[in-house]
Amino acid sequence: MAEKITPRAQDFSQWYQDIVIQARLADYSPVKGCMVIRPNGYSIWEQIQKDLDRRIKETGVRNAYFPLFIPESFLKKEAEHVEGFAPQCAVVTYAGAKDLEEKLVVRPTSETIINSMFAKWIQSYRDLPLLINQWANVVRWEMRTRLFLRTTEFLWQEGHTCHATPEEAEEETRQMLRVYASFAEEVLAMPVVPGLKSESEKFAGALRTYCIEAMMQDKKALQAGTSHNLSTNFAQAFNTMFLDKDGKQKVVHQTSWGVSTRLIGGMIMTHSDDKGLVLPPRLASTHVVIVPIMGNAPNKAAIIEAAESLAAGIRDAGRRSELPYEVGVLVDKDESKQPGWKFHEHELLGTPVRIELGPRDLEKGQVVMTRRDLGKKEFVSLDGARQKVLEMLEAMQKDLLEKARSFRDASTQRVETYGQFSRDIEEKGGFFVAPWCQSKDCEAKVKEETKATIRCLPLDDAYQPIHEAGGCMVCGGSRANVRAIFARSY
Amino acid sequence: MAEKITPRAQDFSQWYQDIVIQARLADYSPVKGCMVIRPNGYSIWEQIQKDLDRRIKETGVRNAYFPLFIPESFLKKEAEHVEGFAPQCAVVTYAGAKDLEEKLVVRPTSETIINSMFAKWIQSYRDLPLLINQWANVVRWEMRTRLFLRTTEFLWQEGHTCHATPEEAEEETRQMLRVYASFAEEVLAMPVVPGLKSESEKFAGALRTYCIEAMMQDKKALQAGTSHNLSTNFAQAFNTMFLDKDGKQKVVHQTSWGVSTRLIGGMIMTHSDDKGLVLPPRLASTHVVIVPIMGNAPNKAAIIEAAESLAAGIRDAGRRSELPYEVGVLVDKDESKQPGWKFHEHELLGTPVRIELGPRDLEKGQVVMTRRDLGKKEFVSLDGARQKVLEMLEAMQKDLLEKARSFRDASTQRVETYGQFSRDIEEKGGFFVAPWCQSKDCEAKVKEETKATIRCLPLDDAYQPIHEAGGCMVCGGSRANVRAIFARSY
Repeated sequence: MAEKITPRAQDFSQWYQDIVIQARLADYSPVKGCMVIRPNGYSIWEQIQKDLDRRIKETGVRNAYFPLFIPESFLKKEAEHVEGFAPQCAVVTYAGAKDLEEKLVVRPTSETIINSMFAKWIQSYRDLPLLINQWANVVRWEMRTRLFLRTTEFLWQEGHTCHATPEEAEEETRQMLRVYASFAEEVLAMPVVPGLKSESEKFAGALRTYCIEAMMQDKKALQAGTSHNLSTNFAQAFNTMFLDKDGKQKVVHQTSWGVSTRLIGGMIMTHSDDKGLVLPPRLASTHVVIVPIMGNAPNKAAIIEAAESLAAGIRDAGRRSELPYEVGVLVDKDESKQPGWKFHEHELLGTPVRIELGPRDLEKGQVVMTRRDLGKKEFVSLDGARQKVLEMLEAMQKDLLEKARSFRDASTQRVETYGQFSRDIEEKGGFFVAPWCQSKDCEAKVKEETKATIRCLPLDDAYQPIHEAGGCMVCGGSRANVRAIFARSY
Repeated sequence: MAEKITPRAQDFSQWYQDIVIQARLADYSPVKGCMVIRPNGYSIWEQIQKDLDRRIKETGVRNAYFPLFIPESFLKKEAEHVEGFAPQCAVVTYAGAKDLEEKLVVRPTSETIINSMFAKWIQSYRDLPLLINQWANVVRWEMRTRLFLRTTEFLWQEGHTCHATPEEAEEETRQMLRVYASFAEEVLAMPVVPGLKSESEKFAGALRTYCIEAMMQDKKALQAGTSHNLSTNFAQAFNTMFLDKDGKQKVVHQTSWGVSTRLIGGMIMTHSDDKGLVLPPRLASTHVVIVPIMGNAPNKAAIIEAAESLAAGIRDAGRRSELPYEVGVLVDKDESKQPGWKFHEHELLGTPVRIELGPRDLEKGQVVMTRRDLGKKEFVSLDGARQKVLEMLEAMQKDLLEKARSFRDASTQRVETYGQFSRDIEEKGGFFVAPWCQSKDCEAKVKEETKATIRCLPLDDAYQPIHEAGGCMVCGGSRANVRAIFARSY
């Protein structure tokens, strides 16, 4: 009953939506802009949470939970913050059948409510650093929404930390960027460029925002995670102070950082194809589907037995292997469906490896194996299948990253002139590396005329933007020029 | 710097609050009725989630996520449901700087929004049973709140299932009650009475509500989980239909079931004592604290080395054991704190096992071990300590359940007359088992005059209330009498 997936070449945006809906990853809800994450999509989020949560905790951060509601006055305490978020807020004005004395904003992010608690909990330098994360839902009223990529409500983690010195806060900000970058590459198989946001693109209330930027298959950029050095902006507004070793009261230095369910959208647009979802093995729950080809075979029972035994063998081999996940194996015995239907279904769902096992295969002691991303059948001996599956899963995880990296690199070009940039971004798309004079005017001109933005300023080893000798791509000026990546984005 | 914990005997309610605040499990937030779950409390919730999520999934349920907001009109589609929940709703009336055309209720529970999706997803009997769970925050505006036990916002899981027949829905309802009961006893070490709620206490919109009821140390009851047979009440309101095998369109039969962060409150009030939290090992992250007693010992380094080596040995032994969790071991080397301070701190935090290791212990090749709930020091050979710790953890988990069960059983009495009941509930408290004629009037009279309610009707093997020959405890009548448990509750 599967509907046809619109090919990427025909309509990328429709292709994306077709994948999400037909693979039953998410659905539109009756509440404007809010999505429903269906079990197939939520299981990906669970894999993301499990792996990232471990990485976050390994840096000494602990999870907590803060209220969904933020008193309106709190949001207003940090001037840039309220300016940035107020237009997107959903507001509770009555509750318990009464009008509220003070309106409550549904959290768009939690810096303010969390600072009100930090101010209470932190007394002295002994309480620092304070490293907290929460997994939560947040709400930002959006005009145009797109499943996973931009929804009114979304799920995320938001880390919030307090430090005694600006140096420690900066180091924490960078450390979490590194955690995100390695997570994106190792788990999502999504290559990212770590960089610094320009002043106009930074988080409302931050001193400095770092980000990781990924390239989708339509060559547009996706901001996949951000890490903010908040300096003392919120701490001053909330009086989050500590008694330092020198006996002086000081304001804490803070960071915040987050990734969201948007990562699922980014992962889909990085790897999937016209047949459906392509899922990196580390995000799958079912890694292998075994399809017994039975038809009218007289030895049906033997085929199913061999399939079940192979499934058990793969699960067991997985547990003994170095793979950082349980290998999930499904034997699809449903006789009401044809093998061809099952092949298509599992291509749609992104099951990494398919194994076919028919009567003649059984006789010959072999199976047919197909890696989802390659789609090429391979005959493998029944004895060697367990080991081969593990190798395929490992290779697929690696290859997806490399393929995406090659694609991105091939779609990234150096430009020197605005003329060339304007033409190429329209005709070819991709990432454009060019010198920028750091003026807001040049940045705004690009945005207005080409719909591209500065995605980030790539960093050198010292986390500094990279000096460029050449003139600004936009104005030709040569004062304080740095390297920037320009691209259209989600 | 620990403040004094109010003894239970002096003020149970203050004792509870002292534990929650001083062990840094939760805190009051600036938003009325909303709590902050601090890392020490949230890690307990993480253990609860991890274990219960596995149990839920083992029954074939998958996780998903539905919107936080519910259009007001949805809530009104089921008459009893809206009547029950409307007074507790928090309502978003403007968002994105505009008044909303339709107000959005912050979910108090998700039957309605989920049914709107079920109606879309379910076509035929092949789509059934549909078994979904979500871990989420919900909001119910409460007048009187108490950390963990009753808060305006709380965290929970809510399962929602659809079935082809009433029998299957009833079986699912009961199955999840069994899951909750075994989870409560095996993990929280909290004995529960499974039972049926009276008509007046059932979920707004349900045909029938089952529950598990626990007894706290002040002999009051705590409803610790509920499982509802919703029949077709919501499905009819939302037109959640399926094409059955016989070619007829039919309405699905549904269930919903949930437990919440309230369980943490129940667990605290079941086990803790005047020294602080007592945590069943299966909910702990740090199971063992090793306190090196150094003072001015010349062989400090050797003591610390022995402590670290013991810690590693315990962790390793834990991994090789049958214990269903990683054994967390902390070596508390902080020289700025005295051993006595550490002992108190870990008693407050509920660390299940404490090990002391001083210079003379090291000479003698021994350590001093103390189980948090018993508080009795035991000398154990350094060689035998690893094994001993595992045994202690296992024994403690079991003993806590048995101790709580004995307490509950000793505080449960059979009564026949209303006079005896009224006197004893005032003087002794506890659970009162008595015949009830099933009339609302008798139930209401008890509530009004004694502040006790019918906690549940205990069940026989066929999940039926138990017939009682004697007259109703309240009116003396003898029509359709069943066994009921009366108690004051949280």
